[in-house]
Amino acid sequence: MNRIAIFTSGGDAPGMNAHIRAVVRSCLNRGIEPIGIYEGYQGMIDGDIATLGRKETANIISRGGTILKTARCEDFKTEQGRERAAKNVRDHGIEGIIACGGDGTFHGAHYLYQEHGIPIVGTPGTIDNDLFGTDYTIGYDTAINTAAEAIDRIRDTAESHGRVFVVEVMGRHAGFIAMDVGVACGAKAIAVPETHTDLADLAGRINEHAHRRTIIIVGEGDQLGSATDVSRMLKESYDIDSKVAILGHIQRGGTPTVRDRVLASRLGVSAVNMLLAGKSDCMIGEHAGEITTTPLNETWEKKKPLPTFYVELSSVLV
Amino acid sequence: MNRIAIFTSGGDAPGMNAHIRAVVRSCLNRGIEPIGIYEGYQGMIDGDIATLGRKETANIISRGGTILKTARCEDFKTEQGRERAAKNVRDHGIEGIIACGGDGTFHGAHYLYQEHGIPIVGTPGTIDNDLFGTDYTIGYDTAINTAAEAIDRIRDTAESHGRVFVVEVMGRHAGFIAMDVGVACGAKAIAVPETHTDLADLAGRINEHAHRRTIIIVGEGDQLGSATDVSRMLKESYDIDSKVAILGHIQRGGTPTVRDRVLASRLGVSAVNMLLAGKSDCMIGEHAGEITTTPLNETWEKKKPLPTFYVELSSVLV
Amino acid sequence: MNRIAIFTSGGDAPGMNAHIRAVVRSCLNRGIEPIGIYEGYQGMIDGDIATLGRKETANIISRGGTILKTARCEDFKTEQGRERAAKNVRDHGIEGIIACGGDGTFHGAHYLYQEHGIPIVGTPGTIDNDLFGTDYTIGYDTAINTAAEAIDRIRDTAESHGRVFVVEVMGRHAGFIAMDVGVACGAKAIAVPETHTDLADLAGRINEHAHRRTIIIVGEGDQLGSATDVSRMLKESYDIDSKVAILGHIQRGGTPTVRDRVLASRLGVSAVNMLLAGKSDCMIGEHAGEITTTPLNETWEKKKPLPTFYVELSSVLV
Amino acid sequence: MNRIAIFTSGGDAPGMNAHIRAVVRSCLNRGIEPIGIYEGYQGMIDGDIATLGRKETANIISRGGTILKTARCEDFKTEQGRERAAKNVRDHGIEGIIACGGDGTFHGAHYLYQEHGIPIVGTPGTIDNDLFGTDYTIGYDTAINTAAEAIDRIRDTAESHGRVFVVEVMGRHAGFIAMDVGVACGAKAIAVPETHTDLADLAGRINEHAHRRTIIIVGEGDQLGSATDVSRMLKESYDIDSKVAILGHIQRGGTPTVRDRVLASRLGVSAVNMLLAGKSDCMIGEHAGEITTTPLNETWEKKKPLPTFYVELSSVLV
Repeated sequence: MNRIAIFTSGGDAPGMNAHIRAVVRSCLNRGIEPIGIYEGYQGMIDGDIATLGRKETANIISRGGTILKTARCEDFKTEQGRERAAKNVRDHGIEGIIACGGDGTFHGAHYLYQEHGIPIVGTPGTIDNDLFGTDYTIGYDTAINTAAEAIDRIRDTAESHGRVFVVEVMGRHAGFIAMDVGVACGAKAIAVPETHTDLADLAGRINEHAHRRTIIIVGEGDQLGSATDVSRMLKESYDIDSKVAILGHIQRGGTPTVRDRVLASRLGVSAVNMLLAGKSDCMIGEHAGEITTTPLNETWEKKKPLPTFYVELSSVLV
Repeated sequence: MNRIAIFTSGGDAPGMNAHIRAVVRSCLNRGIEPIGIYEGYQGMIDGDIATLGRKETANIISRGGTILKTARCEDFKTEQGRERAAKNVRDHGIEGIIACGGDGTFHGAHYLYQEHGIPIVGTPGTIDNDLFGTDYTIGYDTAINTAAEAIDRIRDTAESHGRVFVVEVMGRHAGFIAMDVGVACGAKAIAVPETHTDLADLAGRINEHAHRRTIIIVGEGDQLGSATDVSRMLKESYDIDSKVAILGHIQRGGTPTVRDRVLASRLGVSAVNMLLAGKSDCMIGEHAGEITTTPLNETWEKKKPLPTFYVELSSVLV
Repeated sequence: MNRIAIFTSGGDAPGMNAHIRAVVRSCLNRGIEPIGIYEGYQGMIDGDIATLGRKETANIISRGGTILKTARCEDFKTEQGRERAAKNVRDHGIEGIIACGGDGTFHGAHYLYQEHGIPIVGTPGTIDNDLFGTDYTIGYDTAINTAAEAIDRIRDTAESHGRVFVVEVMGRHAGFIAMDVGVACGAKAIAVPETHTDLADLAGRINEHAHRRTIIIVGEGDQLGSATDVSRMLKESYDIDSKVAILGHIQRGGTPTVRDRVLASRLGVSAVNMLLAGKSDCMIGEHAGEITTTPLNETWEKKKPLPTFYVELSSVLV
Repeated sequence: MNRIAIFTSGGDAPGMNAHIRAVVRSCLNRGIEPIGIYEGYQGMIDGDIATLGRKETANIISRGGTILKTARCEDFKTEQGRERAAKNVRDHGIEGIIACGGDGTFHGAHYLYQEHGIPIVGTPGTIDNDLFGTDYTIGYDTAINTAAEAIDRIRDTAESHGRVFVVEVMGRHAGFIAMDVGVACGAKAIAVPETHTDLADLAGRINEHAHRRTIIIVGEGDQLGSATDVSRMLKESYDIDSKVAILGHIQRGGTPTVRDRVLASRLGVSAVNMLLAGKSDCMIGEHAGEITTTPLNETWEKKKPLPTFYVELSSVLV
């Protein structure tokens, strides 16, 4: 291969820049020209494509966001959109593509490969850690540390005022962020989509404390509803006052942690290696310390399970 | 004086623990017994009062929240409540009190002095910086740095996605937090209660940018409404899409900054000095590097102005 | 078992408090009385032993250091010392012990078991990650993030001045910290005890850059010598000016990361489970997401290898 | 004026980028072309000079270091060097210059004005806060917070091990950093160049504590010597064991605090205003909230005093 392209798509995640840097340097190291596609599939359709080098990727390893930008793209969901994209890819002499993002990104990559035969591998870039085929996704470690730091602050107030706080964290349909953050912050209860949380039990746990100074974590996508819903139900059904905190977009940005930078770097180098080895239509991930490949469709068709030990921890340690 | 008491009241603020520590050590240094009143005026009424020493205040200088806890107290707004409180104060042999908090706290302190002649001075403990008579309040510096760090994260996403973010920060009826944070984070516009913000002008500023990647700061209490209101109006009137981020309670907690620890320490030492010098019914503050005293009622009757240079900065630098 | 004791020994590591908390709550959850031994083996000899409860371990999950203190202990290296310790353990009715620390700690635990038959398991608590039998040790993740944050700061100066910085990180005889931090910070070269680093090659890498703005990481224990040695040799042999930065003790403390808190919590719960299951003279670790046990003597007799991918990363990405 | 140039010189300081951004935007706002001189006086001599715009200064407000780089320059200390620099300045049509740095920078600026009549104002950019004529210098607030965070980490170890740590902080010939950080971190003693520190007294303070867990702060430039000297003398004369920690270059870098960003922004806008108002050969500073100007030579001839309250605080609060 003479030219390999990289793009980022879907929600931005800390470590994407370290990943781009690794792909670029890995290409240069092997005599391949690294290409950047800007704004994800939109840039692929619009031809927003340019050569990358050491200079463009200098001093970005520690920065959040993505220098290649990212965007949602409706056009790529149509055959015509993908055709224009494929034409641009060929016109630029791109012989392999690395698509960094989540399941939406991988759907697009899968179709591009199936319909146009363009060699493409995915790399897991999302704070939600919800992709089957990799222990961790790029951005996840930073997100849980950002969330924990925010909750440590909230706990100062919870302790000082004797208050119940219901804190909502991100995670889409997966409870990884909620579980890791909940255990790390000593939450009294952690509601995640993967398990049933009983409101009566939750109220009981809060009332154990005479002073009710307590943190409850609600993962986005939980069946109980949002943190606001939980807070309202606690008042209506159990006369428990609580404050709501929705951490929101602060969980997406910031300087990546060491783990995210190293994972992003390793997956970048590996993705180039895998393309050169002829792999395509698969995600490059890491499991038990080893690099793995998983067919793209499995990354969203199979459900990545929440390790069972979290449930034990959250029940024993509260 | 043989016994001086300290309590914290109203919202907790980072630096309150450093303040308590300074009062305790300053008392011990002068042969006075330091007393802690727990949960603010509620503890004064309930007699939740205990001697403090070096041990109780060891290793707290760097911690957020307040080891004396804090609470809102309805009972203290009644004459009977204050009478019980005054009786407890006298029964414990307390000859002077330091009340750390905001204007609600100072109202209570003022009445306690006026009605019962108990020597009491206030110290400014609130993240909002909205007290007349001091350049800065304890907790303010930490709050603006916490808010700025959160907005730096949000900016990563704003840049990566080309999005407009409308971010709401605390501050009650004062725009200090919004202004400092807005200037520090390079916000495109800063809406504060002290000035009129024109929505059309705001929309115009956003549209200057081809890509609309922009941060707008809305201070709590602004006439335009909340961040959610501003976002809705931008959509309805100018078809501008934006995301809302409400920083909320994370602004209250966390390890205090150096400025907050030093200010809290200095005001603690000064408050003890002032009580011993016979001062009462006043707030101990800092202005232009010097310790000042301001009659308690002036701290809420007079409006602390937002320095005018912020308005110039925010218009020149956007 | 009716009573299980926990102590921390050797260098302190972030996450030890989360570990103590988990052991205590896990014991209480199973109707066992949790006991704390203060200052490691010294306290075991001196009888500095006390019951722990929810109160003693409240709000410590996010704090660095160890509430049980730690100390080096020469007396425990003698048979008489260990005899006195064993007597104290029996006199306090302690039926199982959890020893959190590094290889020195585990040596002591091994002898205590061999000589006195006291059930004891070790848990890996050290920032150096140098124990065979576990993927990660408690404190490691925090240490690498602290070091990386410090180096990110140094890089600001390296970039602004066009300077070479030779930065020394901790790690004892193992290069884990150096490798993770070096890759994460985009170091130009990483010298670790496990590999031979050629000074001529290192000088060559520095001179590749016209402006020589470069970070070199030297792991403690490298054959080239300390960062100061490397800097001196670069000057003497290659006329390369460089600044030295020795990160030192800041790498030991601070609020633990989420990974360290969760690992510490999980190992705490597992250690109690393992003692109850009759395990002894082994370390409780985590490998590939699963709890493992390793005979204590293997933890220091076997050398934990540095994953090979680091070497590839550090050569490709510089 | 049609063209105003900015450069940074001496040690880099967090906030310099925010300052550059403010100068650039302030110029553009007034229809002036902003020019950047790279690598300080060296770039002025070498003609390393280029127009700056919004794009070059986008997203730098939160970054440490300086995009204009900085350097020491021996050539500028000669008349010929300054002549070449002055010629370059005139050839580029630069009509006013803003020199951001410390006293070395200001010496150069003073000569450039005196010898060549080029309008030039200085802005205080140094972490040491040692310039007469301004309450704070750009970078100081970040440096003290970075140092305090590092010392908070060290304290975890000091507490856990019962150890004495002698910590050396920066500050050149001034004790500002040492005093602010020492008070903020609850140091047992603070040695600064401005006051005499008695070693016997220092040893006495350490021995007050049964467990000797103590932090001693030594400011660079203290008469007692370096932290290493103090540690050695404590051992030799009083048989007190201690660990040494030299914070070093980590104090220079990192994301600037809100105060540093706002001060840097305000001084940038003010410096442009002052040049336009015909001011020259003076430093633009801030005192008691107001913008001030001080003749450049006074900034180094007059000694900026350490506020006396620090001495009281450090003796009362230890």
